[in-house]
Amino acid sequence: MKWVYIEEISEYQDQDIELRGWLFNKRSGGKIRFLLVRDGTGIIQGTIFNPQEESPLFKQFDELTQESSLIVRGKVKEDKRAPGGYELEIKEIEIIQIAKDYPITPKSHGVPFLMEHRHLWLRSQKQHAILQIRAELIKAIRDFFDGRGFRLMDTPILTPSACEGTTTLFETEYFDQKAYLSQSGQLYNEATAAAFGKVYCFGPTFRAEKSKTRRHLIEFWMVEPEVAFALLDDIIKLGEDLVVFIVERVLEERKKELDILERDTKPLEKVKKPFPRLTYEEALQKIKKKGSKMEWGDDFGAPDETMISEFFDKPVNITHFPLSAKAFYMEPDPKRPDLALCVDMLASEGYGEIIGGGQRIHDLSLLEKRIKEHQLPKEAYKWYLDLRKYGSTPHSGFGLGIERTLSWLCKIKHIRETIPFPRLLYRIYP
Amino acid sequence: MKWVYIEEISEYQDQDIELRGWLFNKRSGGKIRFLLVRDGTGIIQGTIFNPQEESPLFKQFDELTQESSLIVRGKVKEDKRAPGGYELEIKEIEIIQIAKDYPITPKSHGVPFLMEHRHLWLRSQKQHAILQIRAELIKAIRDFFDGRGFRLMDTPILTPSACEGTTTLFETEYFDQKAYLSQSGQLYNEATAAAFGKVYCFGPTFRAEKSKTRRHLIEFWMVEPEVAFALLDDIIKLGEDLVVFIVERVLEERKKELDILERDTKPLEKVKKPFPRLTYEEALQKIKKKGSKMEWGDDFGAPDETMISEFFDKPVNITHFPLSAKAFYMEPDPKRPDLALCVDMLASEGYGEIIGGGQRIHDLSLLEKRIKEHQLPKEAYKWYLDLRKYGSTPHSGFGLGIERTLSWLCKIKHIRETIPFPRLLYRIYP
Repeated sequence: MKWVYIEEISEYQDQDIELRGWLFNKRSGGKIRFLLVRDGTGIIQGTIFNPQEESPLFKQFDELTQESSLIVRGKVKEDKRAPGGYELEIKEIEIIQIAKDYPITPKSHGVPFLMEHRHLWLRSQKQHAILQIRAELIKAIRDFFDGRGFRLMDTPILTPSACEGTTTLFETEYFDQKAYLSQSGQLYNEATAAAFGKVYCFGPTFRAEKSKTRRHLIEFWMVEPEVAFALLDDIIKLGEDLVVFIVERVLEERKKELDILERDTKPLEKVKKPFPRLTYEEALQKIKKKGSKMEWGDDFGAPDETMISEFFDKPVNITHFPLSAKAFYMEPDPKRPDLALCVDMLASEGYGEIIGGGQRIHDLSLLEKRIKEHQLPKEAYKWYLDLRKYGSTPHSGFGLGIERTLSWLCKIKHIRETIPFPRLLYRIYP
Repeated sequence: MKWVYIEEISEYQDQDIELRGWLFNKRSGGKIRFLLVRDGTGIIQGTIFNPQEESPLFKQFDELTQESSLIVRGKVKEDKRAPGGYELEIKEIEIIQIAKDYPITPKSHGVPFLMEHRHLWLRSQKQHAILQIRAELIKAIRDFFDGRGFRLMDTPILTPSACEGTTTLFETEYFDQKAYLSQSGQLYNEATAAAFGKVYCFGPTFRAEKSKTRRHLIEFWMVEPEVAFALLDDIIKLGEDLVVFIVERVLEERKKELDILERDTKPLEKVKKPFPRLTYEEALQKIKKKGSKMEWGDDFGAPDETMISEFFDKPVNITHFPLSAKAFYMEPDPKRPDLALCVDMLASEGYGEIIGGGQRIHDLSLLEKRIKEHQLPKEAYKWYLDLRKYGSTPHSGFGLGIERTLSWLCKIKHIRETIPFPRLLYRIYP
């Protein structure tokens, strides 16, 4: 009999097939027994009907426990009442292994317990749905950039110097030197953008931040496009196009999972271009009127970001932050040299920043000055300065955080559920 | 005028357009001047024709140096003799920045010099072609797995324990603990495979090996599929399908780049299923007859692998290695318990191992025994053992190294050219 997956079951109506998976749940009703089997691609109900109640299948049914592994064989029957539209008339069961006392039962567990059992928690319906959407989101992002002629250029994780400050870096011995885990591929993207025009990198990034918030992970994934000759406005539009594209894709392809998460999709359906744009100063004024105590020069805190996003029913772009609050490579606004040509995109529904980016300094002497002002080791940036010596051009890019974006799409409270094995302050197990 | 990229120039025949890029080369001939402009997606010849020789364009032409950045505007003309089939009749030049003394000139440079200038070396034609093929290869791999229902499940980079020995691990402080950079996502894949059926991870991996060979990188990318219920034979077939798929894709989509690299594609055209299969012992016998001094129990060295691959004109699968030479999680062959149910795939043309994988132990007590024998810290593997307690199943997977595969596809000698910023023994700059 052919081994098939539940997600392709509709192609096998009235045929005998084999499923391989795990017992999700079971129940009995009179002379009939129901097995809910999951195989990682879906859940299907299998039925055992035997008027004599003496079938060996009934004995196997009694033996099976939650998460026991098994192979079942039987006939696929259409059933409009079944969740996936199909049922399996079970003819044979092969028990592979009986799971004794599976720790995650239908009763509710505390988060520390679930985090300690993350390797099993992944099997439960909600976590499964979130990570299916994660895979879809990542595929959508890659399709977006590949479809627009961007070249994937992997940037290094082990780097000799820091991109944005050194306080939150993981350090390791690299033979006779020190190396640091990358916080961003941006600087390297600037080199590959000068070679390939339009590039993106997509990989894990690391921040050794001692903060324990719902929005922070120690290890998270980020996609970072960079475009030679692009100005701030070009990159804002690129970010809007990207976010509209991924929202549409997830709504189209992952309806079932959004349903499992009970995600109200109406707010996502409103994510259409153009997004509202505010300058930093306009946004500051708006939240001050609402009672925020933030001062010019400060960065927006999480409550400020939530307050701003509540003015709109779409993601919002905030531009022109004070240069003093931003990284050394930010291009100043020629009309207001105290402001940076930069953008933060805040997700709607109070989810905060998902994109940060802007235009990079392309003038050699200005960049040298900034490196000095920020007391960065000039020698380590020699190659980065070369990019301004040999065919410098205006160029811009941004980074989009995968886990924050996924938190928003799934409307879940804590970012720890958006990655298979979250790395948090003091948590590195499993 | 519309800003377009060279790769889409054929859509703009006889239209006025704008290109943004860098000067690749220039030459004069009588009353005509030729500019070769690259924009990262291609190279096009622009022509300036002026009988009076007084055009300001001629002055700009004289000023331009290799790798100077510029914007050119003009009309796209079909020209069958031109490399891409099109030329640009230049009407306007806007010089953005003049590059003085670009370090990489058409004369040949030593490898240490080029490695020190990797950020610029990427712009030269051969490096550009290799990395274009790299992007295509990665896209092909993702398309292959996504198209077969595999779920991308990112595995962590920071891990509390080692997968295969501890001598080649990068270590870092993780708040109050130690963490290590991942050498493989496999163990975590085994957890996600039990939740999703078919999974893959795709990310950077790290080996702090003090070896300086043409085949080793300190930081390299690996794709690792894992399939619940799959046996050794299933995973060998999956590996064959994958390799055939990526070779076909690269031959179809990257002919231009393979031409630039002067890659003879005939050996690649022979990569069709099925690949020859040998056991370890059969392979050992073959190379001993040819003079190899290798003994039973040793792993194949690079010269042995080359010798084996020379018997065939396709990649070859070698199975059933001595268990003693393999990692603790390898399933023993029930018929020969001293051998592992494992596979190494060697690329053709002497390129050595590109795939390593096999069936994993699914019996709890055997795995506990192995962890003890290998003196691994049982506490760190608690979660991994859980996978054998709760719905254990036979399962198999493999890892394919991106850079080794790319070396073979491009037929280049040294792996350092297969990644934008290679990390080598003692080299972490740029």
